[in-house]
Amino acid sequence: MTELRRTVETYWSAAEARDWSTFATTLSDDVVYELPQTRERIRGKDAYVRFNREYPDTWHISVHRLVADAGSDHVATWVHAVVGLEEMHAVTFFTGDDAGRITTVTDFWPEAYEPPPGREHLVERY
Amino acid sequence: MTELRRTVETYWSAAEARDWSTFATTLSDDVVYELPQTRERIRGKDAYVRFNREYPDTWHISVHRLVADAGSDHVATWVHAVVGLEEMHAVTFFTGDDAGRITTVTDFWPEAYEPPPGREHLVERY
Repeated sequence: MTELRRTVETYWSAAEARDWSTFATTLSDDVVYELPQTRERIRGKDAYVRFNREYPDTWHISVHRLVADAGSDHVATWVHAVVGLEEMHAVTFFTGDDAGRITTVTDFWPEAYEPPPGREHLVERY
Repeated sequence: MTELRRTVETYWSAAEARDWSTFATTLSDDVVYELPQTRERIRGKDAYVRFNREYPDTWHISVHRLVADAGSDHVATWVHAVVGLEEMHAVTFFTGDDAGRITTVTDFWPEAYEPPPGREHLVERY
């Protein structure tokens, strides 16, 4: 089993470099991308590379944490994204095949919100 | 190094059972909890257990995916939460100490949103 950790490192570095041919090598032909927040799904390497290539190009990504489970061939990443003037977090879950290519990508883009009242006695803001 | 994977499994099962004494055993005394979306931080086991115990009790959790990196003692989980009538995803990153207790918990609660226009040619909705 080729290590999915390295594939995911390449996935992010190639995305940041807009090196879409290298990016494509990280993906299995029938990769499935899902965004649970919008319930959007993209099927197949060609469509998924195109989705990334066509995405408005105002973003930069740096990987903050990468968690790789060699036993199950699962990886999770937490990245910092600068999108235009906005700083965001993105969390992504990956699965891989025996060749170390990515078979599923599940992306979350959590947005900032104001906390509910009633827990100020336990919490500080940063 | 005690396996953080098992500790995190206990963390979620004890939370779901409202078994706060077992939940407390999963945490180091100086655990730090952070919610980047609200920029809230809670310091210490006592305050963090109390935060969970006092949280309005209308939620149920099931672990959908757990990714454990034995080498770095990092764990990431993706859980399905039912909060009142709402179904949500939560993503959490954990770090641990040498005794297998949790030292940091970083929680994300991504909310549903409508996708931007312009990518319908690549995307299906589910």
